[in-house]
Amino acid sequence: MKNNNARKDVIAMAKKAKNASFLLSLIPTSFKNAALKAMAKAIKDNAEYLKKENKKDIVFAKKQGYSEALIDRLLLNDKRIKAMVQCLLDTAKLKDPVGDVITSFKRPNGLNIKKVRTPIGVIGIIYESRPNVTSDCIGLCLKSGNSVILKGGKEAFYSNKAIFSVMKKAVKKTKIPQEAIQLVASTDREAINVLLGLNDYVDLIVPRGGEGLIRFVAENSSIPVIKHYKGVCHTYVSNKADLKMARTICFNAKVQRPGVCNAMETMLVHKAIAKKFLPEIASELLEAGVEIRGCKRTKAIIKCAKAATEKDWNEEYLDLILSVKVVDDVKQAIEHINNYGSQHSDAIITKDKKEADIFLRSVDSSCLYVNASTRFTDGYEFGFGAEIGISTDKLHARGPMALEELTTYKYMVYGQGQIRE
Amino acid sequence: MKNNNARKDVIAMAKKAKNASFLLSLIPTSFKNAALKAMAKAIKDNAEYLKKENKKDIVFAKKQGYSEALIDRLLLNDKRIKAMVQCLLDTAKLKDPVGDVITSFKRPNGLNIKKVRTPIGVIGIIYESRPNVTSDCIGLCLKSGNSVILKGGKEAFYSNKAIFSVMKKAVKKTKIPQEAIQLVASTDREAINVLLGLNDYVDLIVPRGGEGLIRFVAENSSIPVIKHYKGVCHTYVSNKADLKMARTICFNAKVQRPGVCNAMETMLVHKAIAKKFLPEIASELLEAGVEIRGCKRTKAIIKCAKAATEKDWNEEYLDLILSVKVVDDVKQAIEHINNYGSQHSDAIITKDKKEADIFLRSVDSSCLYVNASTRFTDGYEFGFGAEIGISTDKLHARGPMALEELTTYKYMVYGQGQIRE
Repeated sequence: MKNNNARKDVIAMAKKAKNASFLLSLIPTSFKNAALKAMAKAIKDNAEYLKKENKKDIVFAKKQGYSEALIDRLLLNDKRIKAMVQCLLDTAKLKDPVGDVITSFKRPNGLNIKKVRTPIGVIGIIYESRPNVTSDCIGLCLKSGNSVILKGGKEAFYSNKAIFSVMKKAVKKTKIPQEAIQLVASTDREAINVLLGLNDYVDLIVPRGGEGLIRFVAENSSIPVIKHYKGVCHTYVSNKADLKMARTICFNAKVQRPGVCNAMETMLVHKAIAKKFLPEIASELLEAGVEIRGCKRTKAIIKCAKAATEKDWNEEYLDLILSVKVVDDVKQAIEHINNYGSQHSDAIITKDKKEADIFLRSVDSSCLYVNASTRFTDGYEFGFGAEIGISTDKLHARGPMALEELTTYKYMVYGQGQIRE
Repeated sequence: MKNNNARKDVIAMAKKAKNASFLLSLIPTSFKNAALKAMAKAIKDNAEYLKKENKKDIVFAKKQGYSEALIDRLLLNDKRIKAMVQCLLDTAKLKDPVGDVITSFKRPNGLNIKKVRTPIGVIGIIYESRPNVTSDCIGLCLKSGNSVILKGGKEAFYSNKAIFSVMKKAVKKTKIPQEAIQLVASTDREAINVLLGLNDYVDLIVPRGGEGLIRFVAENSSIPVIKHYKGVCHTYVSNKADLKMARTICFNAKVQRPGVCNAMETMLVHKAIAKKFLPEIASELLEAGVEIRGCKRTKAIIKCAKAATEKDWNEEYLDLILSVKVVDDVKQAIEHINNYGSQHSDAIITKDKKEADIFLRSVDSSCLYVNASTRFTDGYEFGFGAEIGISTDKLHARGPMALEELTTYKYMVYGQGQIRE
């Protein structure tokens, strides 16, 4: 880093966060909820200040010639500030997972063993652009009893700093250890490297942003990371599908919001129904402005904008583009998904329960759907009341992550003098 | 690596293991159990061959001047081969966790969501010395539906290879995909580096061995690792303890088997009972050959072999050595444990339920005991019927790890045409 002091700052910050996490793990739910409400109020009361600081980031972004999409993600307006306030208030209403007894059992020697949900400790969030991540993550980490260290992108420097300072000031008036929330204000990317090496103080890293950031974090962290790489989601339309239902679902999965991770990127169609199904769905998709890239067999049935190449099967378009492949059977569909998919969300449309079961058991993804749109992979849609991300990893948490996924457990063992023979 | 072919071999092996894992995840429990029994029989039938191959490792180890302890860990005798056979038969009897519904719920839109336990995929086990790890891990990974890639230490080269070849031959005659079990036969340490970089094919690494190996693996892996660093276990004797019970438990925790990770390394004693308790327990410990290293206040009460230094508080002796510290109260005991402990197993001896509760909630370790010996942290003692290790990590699995900890989950979502509005 530019100077050794900045390095020391990050280490000192992590130590403080760790110490605060011990206190935080003991604090009653009511104190945490009171702090969440106080922070929500502070954001509401300081909306004008937040917008003023945000403007500095927007001006900088425009000077730098950042894309319109990025500038839009950066923007804080009244509607978005209101959503930040609401997220904190909603988090206050959620059930506190800390202290839940996951299971308990008694051993023949009389030992009573309880497996109890506890906070993880210190969570580092490394993120890009959207400033609401700052307040959302402070809220979710606090509610689950974890200290949080935030490291936002330089493009949102003023916005993140302003949101953080408003929330920190509010926390000071509550019974929450204020050092439980920390922000790395340095814009030096080396600060990330320092943070990723502090495995004595930081227990988990959650990166949120583009694939580049996530890969960088995963490759350079000696702390466990929960990743969300990308969503290359598939829908397989079986020869046993209700084709009308299949059309509705595929259209929804592609068109309703193409820029998100749970949108469909590849449609797989059974060869026996391809001639009937493809022209029908294609006309709907074309009308919605979707560009279709087809395999050889697809191109023999419908007109495609392009031929789908190997690259297409791996691609998360996040756009009104769809790759289409005709397959021989469910087995080939499963193989394609396990080979090219991103273990995010995949669907089968079929009336055959047995076939659905094979698909559900064989596809190695976090969320598998029968006769529904992949667009439902989302913490809110699953009823978790929150979402800190969607994990495409298999360890610890898979799929939508909310409060429970921000906890671990410990075994509490109650004896009456038992010793090992 | 010495040659690029060896590198290619490891990659090819991992790809095969991945493909086999897809098949294995669908295989019924009865097929897995039949394979476990066939492998057990094969080991039993080939005991003489295994002992002959093991002798080569023993001869090599003696030539190299390895320690007696290491040579003992390497040795395969009839008793140990019998235990390997029994472990496989016991694993066959355990409940298969795959397919368990962890939770299920219905959403207002009619979507039925099931959270279902599934295999993780491909598990890499990197281990040292004990050849029984080869057969134990093949058994546990197979039962939990995972492919396994084994990389043992060069000191057990012939033993591991022999056990593996006997088991592989047995698997060939069963309905299990034989490529689900793999052994990296190269003794080149670079093979480990290759394996640790294959995150496209390997889902989890479990290192088993000394702290050096585990740190090396954790620092060099781009695949998630579940670690067991060390067990610096504490027992805190409160001023509210039944002192007779405290003596029995502390003696057991230190003396019964000092060379294991769940043995006590540091005893913390409340100042109000130190004058009464320390001389009593010290005389028992001295009689058992325990060397006591005390803090200043301890030394003022009992004669110690050495003064305990900062280094002692961090030390996993794995020997008949005990560090002792007198503390002011439970708060100071908790701080000491959270500062110096290894998040493994810690105990409090007290009759005060409130104090016990504070200890249980505040100490950040995987297993916490009230009025019992730390020696119970063990998959078998917890009733899991097996143990692949004890995690001192907080993510995914904490404490004793058995079959359930070798699984992940997926969400299976059943719809009737639902789309996102």
